[in-house]
Amino acid sequence: MAKRAKHPEDVRLGRRHRDEWGIEFSRIVAFSDGVFAIAITLLVLTIEVPDSLPKGTTVGELISDARGDLLAYAISFAVLGKLWLAHHRFFSAVERFDGVLMGLNLLYLGWIALVPYTSDLLGDYGDKSAGVIMYAIIMVAVSLTFQVQIAYSSRQNLIRPELREVERRYAAPTNFLIAGVFLLSIPVALFSPLAAILMWPVVFLAGRRIAVRLAELRS
Amino acid sequence: MAKRAKHPEDVRLGRRHRDEWGIEFSRIVAFSDGVFAIAITLLVLTIEVPDSLPKGTTVGELISDARGDLLAYAISFAVLGKLWLAHHRFFSAVERFDGVLMGLNLLYLGWIALVPYTSDLLGDYGDKSAGVIMYAIIMVAVSLTFQVQIAYSSRQNLIRPELREVERRYAAPTNFLIAGVFLLSIPVALFSPLAAILMWPVVFLAGRRIAVRLAELRS
Amino acid sequence: MAKRAKHPEDVRLGRRHRDEWGIEFSRIVAFSDGVFAIAITLLVLTIEVPDSLPKGTTVGELISDARGDLLAYAISFAVLGKLWLAHHRFFSAVERFDGVLMGLNLLYLGWIALVPYTSDLLGDYGDKSAGVIMYAIIMVAVSLTFQVQIAYSSRQNLIRPELREVERRYAAPTNFLIAGVFLLSIPVALFSPLAAILMWPVVFLAGRRIAVRLAELRS
Amino acid sequence: MAKRAKHPEDVRLGRRHRDEWGIEFSRIVAFSDGVFAIAITLLVLTIEVPDSLPKGTTVGELISDARGDLLAYAISFAVLGKLWLAHHRFFSAVERFDGVLMGLNLLYLGWIALVPYTSDLLGDYGDKSAGVIMYAIIMVAVSLTFQVQIAYSSRQNLIRPELREVERRYAAPTNFLIAGVFLLSIPVALFSPLAAILMWPVVFLAGRRIAVRLAELRS
Repeated sequence: MAKRAKHPEDVRLGRRHRDEWGIEFSRIVAFSDGVFAIAITLLVLTIEVPDSLPKGTTVGELISDARGDLLAYAISFAVLGKLWLAHHRFFSAVERFDGVLMGLNLLYLGWIALVPYTSDLLGDYGDKSAGVIMYAIIMVAVSLTFQVQIAYSSRQNLIRPELREVERRYAAPTNFLIAGVFLLSIPVALFSPLAAILMWPVVFLAGRRIAVRLAELRS
Repeated sequence: MAKRAKHPEDVRLGRRHRDEWGIEFSRIVAFSDGVFAIAITLLVLTIEVPDSLPKGTTVGELISDARGDLLAYAISFAVLGKLWLAHHRFFSAVERFDGVLMGLNLLYLGWIALVPYTSDLLGDYGDKSAGVIMYAIIMVAVSLTFQVQIAYSSRQNLIRPELREVERRYAAPTNFLIAGVFLLSIPVALFSPLAAILMWPVVFLAGRRIAVRLAELRS
Repeated sequence: MAKRAKHPEDVRLGRRHRDEWGIEFSRIVAFSDGVFAIAITLLVLTIEVPDSLPKGTTVGELISDARGDLLAYAISFAVLGKLWLAHHRFFSAVERFDGVLMGLNLLYLGWIALVPYTSDLLGDYGDKSAGVIMYAIIMVAVSLTFQVQIAYSSRQNLIRPELREVERRYAAPTNFLIAGVFLLSIPVALFSPLAAILMWPVVFLAGRRIAVRLAELRS
Repeated sequence: MAKRAKHPEDVRLGRRHRDEWGIEFSRIVAFSDGVFAIAITLLVLTIEVPDSLPKGTTVGELISDARGDLLAYAISFAVLGKLWLAHHRFFSAVERFDGVLMGLNLLYLGWIALVPYTSDLLGDYGDKSAGVIMYAIIMVAVSLTFQVQIAYSSRQNLIRPELREVERRYAAPTNFLIAGVFLLSIPVALFSPLAAILMWPVVFLAGRRIAVRLAELRS
C-alpha cells in the first residue's frame, strides 16, 4: 500500500486522506462494521430458552412463548441491517476523516450497540408503553447522531465532491423522516404500544420514496 | 486501491463492480464473515455450566449432563462451518453487487444468526419433536434463501461468467438437497426426534456426490 | 501484495517490517480491533432485563432500575472508545513489530477484554467502594501496559522515525496522567465511591491539555 | 487486486494460490482470527457478577469469590493468545490452500471456540478432577488437530518452500510437547487438580526451549 507524503493543508487541519492512510481508514470502517456485526448477532441472545421445561408446558409452548422475542429479533435485525447499509453507503462517500468525525462515529456506535438491550425490552415488554418508548428513543438518537455526522462531514469537505450533493439531498431527509416517525410513535405508545410498533415499518417500506419526494419539494 | 470511473451501464442499473468498489465489496464480505464467525463462536454459550454444583451431583455428572449441549454444539458448528464455506465459494464468484443482492444477503444472515437459538433448543430439548422441528425449519429457510441469492445473481449477471455454469449446475441441486432433507426430517421428527437428527448428516457426508449425480442426470 | 525479501538485520533481530508482511501486520491490528469491538459491544449484556416483571413493578421502573447499568455502559463505552483511538493512533505509527511487542499487545488486550466485567460490577455496585476500586485498578493496569508498549517500541526503533518524538512527548504524559487519576481515585473511593467516579472524566475532558502542558514543562 | 489466471496444476488438484485468490485467502485468515478474537473476549462472560448482593456478603467478598474465575480467565487468555500467535505464524507460511486444509482449520476452530466453556468449568470447579481433565482434553485435541493441519500442509506442498523445514522441525515438537504435557496432567488431576494445573505453565515458559532441543536431538 503506497503511502504519499501528507498534504500540508491536511496536516494543518489534522485531516487525513483515505488513500494516504489506507490501513487507518479501513480500521475505522472495520471497527464500525465489527460493532454492527456483533450487535446484530448478539440479538439472538435475547431469545429465551429456559434450561428446563417449566412444569406443565411443552417445548412447542416454549417456542410459542418466545414469539415476542422472535418478532423483536426480526424487527431489530431489519433495523440494524438497514442502518448498516446506510452507514456503509455514507462511509463509501467519505474521503477524509478527522478527530471529530471519529468521535461522532463512536457516539453513533454507542447507540447502535445499545439496540440488543432495547430489543430485549421490546421482546419481553412490547405490550407495555415503556418498553416501546425506550426502543423509539434510541432510534431517534441513532438517526439524529447519523445526521450530525453527515452534516459535519459535508461542511468540512470530508465527503467526495461528486457525492456531496447526493448525501445532502437524500440522506438528510431520510434521517429526519426516521427520527420523525420514531418520535411520533412515542406519544402513540402511551395509548397503544402495538399501534406505535406498527408505525415503524413505514420508514422501511416507504422511506426512500418519501425522502425523495421531500428532496424534490425542497429544490 | 485504484478506483476506476464507474461504468455507465452499471450506474444506470445501480450495480457496482467489485474491483471499482474494493472497500465496499470487501465490507459486505467481511460483515457476512463477521456474522458467521460470531454466530459460530456464540454457540459455546449454549453449553450450560451451573454456577454451583446441584446437591448430590459431581462435576463429572455435570459435564455428562451437558452431553446434549455438546452434541448440539458439534452439529451446529459443522452446519455453520459448511454453510460458511458455501457462502465463501459463492461470494468469490460474485463480480458485481446491487441493492437486492445485499438485501437478500442480509435476510440470509438473519437466518444464520438464529442458529445459536435453535441450537440451544436442540441441545436442551433434542429429544422432543418441537425442538428438532424448529431447527429443521430454520435450515430449510437458510438453504432456500441461499438458493434465491444464487439464482438472482445468476440471472442478473452478477456472477463471473466462467463460474456461472458451475453455480447453476452444482450449487442449486445442493441447496435443494439440503432443503429437501431438512424438510423431510420435519414429519419424521413428529414420530422420532432422534431419527430426524440422524437424517441430517446425509447432507454433509453424501451431499456433494448426490448433487453431482443430480446435475449429471439433468444435463 | 508484493513481498520483498527480508532485510538481513530484521532477520537477525526477528523483526518484521509492516510493508513486507502486510497480511501479518494487518492481522495483528485486526485482531486488536476485533477484541476492542467485541468488548465494547459486549458491554450491552451488562444491562439487566429481567425475563418477567417482578411483582408490583412497572416496565418504567425496570428501566429506571437499570440507570446504574446504563451509566456504567456510557462510561465504559467512552473509555474503550478513547483507548481504541489511542491504540489506533499508536499502531499507525508502528513500522516494525517483533515477538515482544506482540506479547505486550496481548497482555494489553487481556486488560481491555476485562472491562465488561469491571463495568458490570460498576453498574451493579457503583455505590460501594470495592466495585469502583476494581474498575480503577484495571484502568491503571491498562494505561501502564500501554505505556510499556510505547516505550519498548520507541527504544527498539519499531516506530516510524518522524513519529517517535510525538509518541514520546505526548503519549507518555497522557498515559501517566490516566494512570495517576485512576490511582488517586482508589483511596478516594474508600470514602466516597461517587467522588471517585466523578474524578474520572477529568482524564477525558482535560487530558490532552494537561498532557501537552506537562510535555512543555519537561522540554 | 490483480487476479492471475489459475495455474493448470492447481486447478487439477483443486488448490488455490494465496496471491491469485487474495480475497478468499484473507477471508479464511480473517474468519479464523474472528473466532479467536471472539472466543478470547467471550472469556470475560465466565466471570460471575451476581445481580444483587447475597445476604451478608460485601462487594469485596464478591470479587474475592470470583478469584477462581479471574485465574481461569488469565490462564485461558494466555492459552488462546499463544495459540493464536502459533496459528498466525503457521498461516503466514501457507502459500496455497485446498478443501482439506479448510476443513481441518474449521475442526481446529471448533476446539478453540470450546475454550470459553472449559474455562468456565475450570473457574468454577478447578478444585475438582473432572473440571481440570475436561480442560486438558480439549487442549490435547487442539494441539493434535493443529499438528495434523501442519503435517498435511507440509506433505501437500501448501507451505512456502523456505519455511517448510522450519515448520517441520519446530512446530511439530512444540505441538507434541503441548499435547504431551496436557495428556500427562490428566492422570495427575485424578489425584491433585492443583498439581495438574501447575504443570501447564511449563509449556508456555519452557516450551520453545524444549522443542528446540528435541529438534536438535532428532537431526
